[in-house]
Amino acid sequence: MPAGPDLATLRAAHERIRPYIHRTPVMTSRSLDELAGARLFFKCENLQKTGSFKIRGAMYTILSLGEAEARRGVVTHSSGNHATAVAYAARLRGIPAYVVMPSNAPQVKRQAVEAFGGKITLCEPTLAAREAAAQKIIEQTGAVLVHPYNDERIIAGQATAALELLEQVSELDLVLAPVSGGGLLSGTAIAVKSLRPRTEVVGAEPAGADDAFRSLATGHLVPAETPQTIADGLRASLCPLTFQILRERDCRIVLVREEEIVAAMRLLWERLKLVVEPSGAVPAAPLLCHTSAAEGRNVGVILSGGNVDLDHLPFS
Amino acid sequence: MPAGPDLATLRAAHERIRPYIHRTPVMTSRSLDELAGARLFFKCENLQKTGSFKIRGAMYTILSLGEAEARRGVVTHSSGNHATAVAYAARLRGIPAYVVMPSNAPQVKRQAVEAFGGKITLCEPTLAAREAAAQKIIEQTGAVLVHPYNDERIIAGQATAALELLEQVSELDLVLAPVSGGGLLSGTAIAVKSLRPRTEVVGAEPAGADDAFRSLATGHLVPAETPQTIADGLRASLCPLTFQILRERDCRIVLVREEEIVAAMRLLWERLKLVVEPSGAVPAAPLLCHTSAAEGRNVGVILSGGNVDLDHLPFS
Repeated sequence: MPAGPDLATLRAAHERIRPYIHRTPVMTSRSLDELAGARLFFKCENLQKTGSFKIRGAMYTILSLGEAEARRGVVTHSSGNHATAVAYAARLRGIPAYVVMPSNAPQVKRQAVEAFGGKITLCEPTLAAREAAAQKIIEQTGAVLVHPYNDERIIAGQATAALELLEQVSELDLVLAPVSGGGLLSGTAIAVKSLRPRTEVVGAEPAGADDAFRSLATGHLVPAETPQTIADGLRASLCPLTFQILRERDCRIVLVREEEIVAAMRLLWERLKLVVEPSGAVPAAPLLCHTSAAEGRNVGVILSGGNVDLDHLPFS
Repeated sequence: MPAGPDLATLRAAHERIRPYIHRTPVMTSRSLDELAGARLFFKCENLQKTGSFKIRGAMYTILSLGEAEARRGVVTHSSGNHATAVAYAARLRGIPAYVVMPSNAPQVKRQAVEAFGGKITLCEPTLAAREAAAQKIIEQTGAVLVHPYNDERIIAGQATAALELLEQVSELDLVLAPVSGGGLLSGTAIAVKSLRPRTEVVGAEPAGADDAFRSLATGHLVPAETPQTIADGLRASLCPLTFQILRERDCRIVLVREEEIVAAMRLLWERLKLVVEPSGAVPAAPLLCHTSAAEGRNVGVILSGGNVDLDHLPFS
């Protein structure tokens, strides 16, 4: 048995979350096709509820909890899109969401969580402090930890973006998604390889946070120690579960440089007229900078999110 | 007979241009609905070919030219979205497009016109110089002037955005569009009033370029002398044709302040994840700033375009 949830689980997850999420559109641009020398199909998860694909996994996981378990609430120590998604999904289920955030998290991220009724606990900006604060909440409340990627339910939920993409575009030679902890990419790999075994799945990763690239190249998990990238959603590292899924499904990783991320983001804003966050632009970068061997092919690109701070844009 | 093209002409224009334009989507946002206290339906002309609704009128006008007439080419002295649209439409028809631009026009606007093969003539940044340069080209080449709004074909073309919106959303109480020369607003008024006589049509206009407001209030055309607004697409003034259409169709004009335009633009970017230009955000401003008496109603909003210079954004 290969690692991770199977296709039937992915489909069940999709049925379960369908009433709560958008079936996001797929957009195209003739000028970007010309630039890439390929036919590009952009799956617009920036237009998803809460502004990113993260609601898919969070919603499925939170809907999967038993009544008694759910009543005690959920906890997470993400500071980004996953935290917003957990707060949103918990509110829909009518249960508390406890979110541990580093004290230096941007105001805009705190506001998003608070807007959905999440209860924020601030802590020192270290992983150890975040884990300790989450552990303390679990002990005090009995809340369930909703991990951003090390969980088969999360992976099944994130995979539903690719399930939709495969329904929306029939002939894809290649699907690109960003990779961080690997929840989205491993779910994408399971969906694509189950339904279209000959379609290639490629993860795009910032060169400054290249743990997935090095892990798959060496065959050993190599966590990123000091990730440095503008793509604030891509600073986590693979876990054993996502690493194994990516290995077994023959995922390839392509690295992108910081200036390529910004250039791709700018092109997406200018040509697609879509607000895409740096992490979301990462899978477009290899196409628009011709480093992905996509020429002449039909390529699906998962634009994973659109939550940016408009006061701090990387242009000009 | 009321002034302007009739519904049959609008429908013929739509049939004619349909193969060349996008049927743009209508987007919604629960959080913006909550903010406005209304149900908002955003017609996304920022996602239109060339990045604005202007391609609708330009395409229809250029397709309407006779063979001999068309062969000599078309000329315009707009420096904005209309120029890009004329260049694009002319290229599709395979005829020359001559575009007169002020020497201080932004580089990005020149590049857009050049990308579609438009031939640019630079002139002094005055209306007199632009008209003289266009006249000289007409004398030398026999090219046909494609006016940005003072033309029934242009108005019929621009009206097709509202035709689509009325098909896409069945129950609208109110439709808002920006107003400048009045091509889009008068076309919208004809479409809406022909098909839904009880639906209100409102033009949104920057307070710093309030000629339509003053013209309709006084019953006399009062051109804007020194329009001052960030909404660079809304600095023109009504012409007798568009003025008469707006009067006969009972259009109301609502004025918006500069800070309301920027606030609305920011909300559209943050919540809809759409790149909308300042002019395109103008019709959203009265809704999001509660100056339009839209509370509790179903409101269509024409987001007219998405061409912005990312190096010069009004945020922060």
